[in-house]
Amino acid sequence: MEAIMKDLIINRRSIRKYTNYKISKEELTKIIDESLKAPSSNNLQPLKLLVIDSDEAKRTLKTIMPMNQLQLETSSQLVLIFGDTLKYERAEELFKLAHEAGKMPLELIERHLTKFRTQQIDPTDAKHIASLHLDAGLFAMNFMTLARYYGYDTCAIGGFNKDLANEAFKIDSRYVPILLISIGKKDDEGYDSYRLPASIVADFI
Amino acid sequence: MEAIMKDLIINRRSIRKYTNYKISKEELTKIIDESLKAPSSNNLQPLKLLVIDSDEAKRTLKTIMPMNQLQLETSSQLVLIFGDTLKYERAEELFKLAHEAGKMPLELIERHLTKFRTQQIDPTDAKHIASLHLDAGLFAMNFMTLARYYGYDTCAIGGFNKDLANEAFKIDSRYVPILLISIGKKDDEGYDSYRLPASIVADFI
Repeated sequence: MEAIMKDLIINRRSIRKYTNYKISKEELTKIIDESLKAPSSNNLQPLKLLVIDSDEAKRTLKTIMPMNQLQLETSSQLVLIFGDTLKYERAEELFKLAHEAGKMPLELIERHLTKFRTQQIDPTDAKHIASLHLDAGLFAMNFMTLARYYGYDTCAIGGFNKDLANEAFKIDSRYVPILLISIGKKDDEGYDSYRLPASIVADFI
Repeated sequence: MEAIMKDLIINRRSIRKYTNYKISKEELTKIIDESLKAPSSNNLQPLKLLVIDSDEAKRTLKTIMPMNQLQLETSSQLVLIFGDTLKYERAEELFKLAHEAGKMPLELIERHLTKFRTQQIDPTDAKHIASLHLDAGLFAMNFMTLARYYGYDTCAIGGFNKDLANEAFKIDSRYVPILLISIGKKDDEGYDSYRLPASIVADFI
């Protein structure tokens, strides 16, 4: 088990060149489904994923990403993660699905909805948007770990023009673009990047 | 391998009651060290972790967290994750450590530092702070997965008073509080919460 974890999490590296292996839609859907087990604030699951799968979609991505061309060209897919600034507005619909799946009692639903109604969320509030980024990070790490479990590698890419992403892909402005992740069969080994140790990062009190 | 991954990621549940087992500082440090393998924007590793380990620190936390009392009392530790809004100011120091570890050539350091100098980052900028939340999420998911690998469970807690956290723990205001995670040996089974399927969340284009 030690060896497996080392391979999945500890020895993960960003990969920027992939072979021409194409991951099937079915398999990538399974990886996404499993990655969606990540928690989110109030379990509101505010993410929207755009899987850039076709050559045409890659060409569109190219217009908002001047760098990272090798990944763009060689990756099997790229997953563009958005956060829904109007997540509270779809809470009732989400909770209905949870209830139908037998995983959320009606009294709990009512308590949550009452709480949300009293919160008066401003969708452009910085803290609210920051929380979407936290939820995106939780999902993204699961996705990168599970990708490796299925034999693939990834690279998290922040370097694309977020101001143009919605227009390029015709995505409603309620969704804010957060992170892009390339995925595929690796065709290079990446490099071992430095990490600060816990002794510097963490204080026990 | 399938069974292991299901147990670590797919069957993770939020645990809100723990046994009185105390995780040693050494073991928790190891879990944090391994979790820090998560990527971060520009590999700037902007997180600061406060490990709430003592009864006194738990009492301080209690003053800013009216809910979640059972977790507070029974968890072995709680990890409070902060993001450093002045991460660019310590880039040079970080890169020096990376260089000394043989993992960052000098010309790459110079290129990054030149880029950062031209960026004129406002530490209170909403997008900058949102990016710290993304990095926190990447780390947090690794931490929750690795905790389970070592036989522990966790719960991600957003419900504490972030406006008072710095003052309560005497943390410089350059660090913004992002997420709290309790950890320990589970003493209940949690519950299976609903997740939206990839067929709803993801669009292939």
